[in-house]
Amino acid sequence: MTELSQSAVERIMKKAGAERVSADAAETLSALMEDYGMFLSKEAKKMSDHAGRKTLRGSDIRMAAEIFK
Amino acid sequence: MTELSQSAVERIMKKAGAERVSADAAETLSALMEDYGMFLSKEAKKMSDHAGRKTLRGSDIRMAAEIFK
Repeated sequence: MTELSQSAVERIMKKAGAERVSADAAETLSALMEDYGMFLSKEAKKMSDHAGRKTLRGSDIRMAAEIFK
Repeated sequence: MTELSQSAVERIMKKAGAERVSADAAETLSALMEDYGMFLSKEAKKMSDHAGRKTLRGSDIRMAAEIFK
């Protein structure tokens, strides 16, 4: 169901200082990161619709992140 | 530098309703999602340290997400 690879998410946790990581931790973080990405994407989609574009741009994502930070 | 695959991030944006997605949009969202994951992981690491554990658990991630939501 999730799009992100568990190994990528595990590497992020290790970079953050975790020595060991449970499978449940990787799944939980993966789901949270995906929810966040989905939320920002939906807001960014509204920005691109508003601008009359069909292509989502980096500027749409940045504006969404700026508004909801 | 980023851990997440651009294609996975692109799929999330498509799921969110985007018809087309620029490479810049995928890179921007990827970096934001990774920053968020890194932030939550660092906070979760503090929780596991506090509990005297070396293994980061799902419950550490959930507590971090709960506190900073």
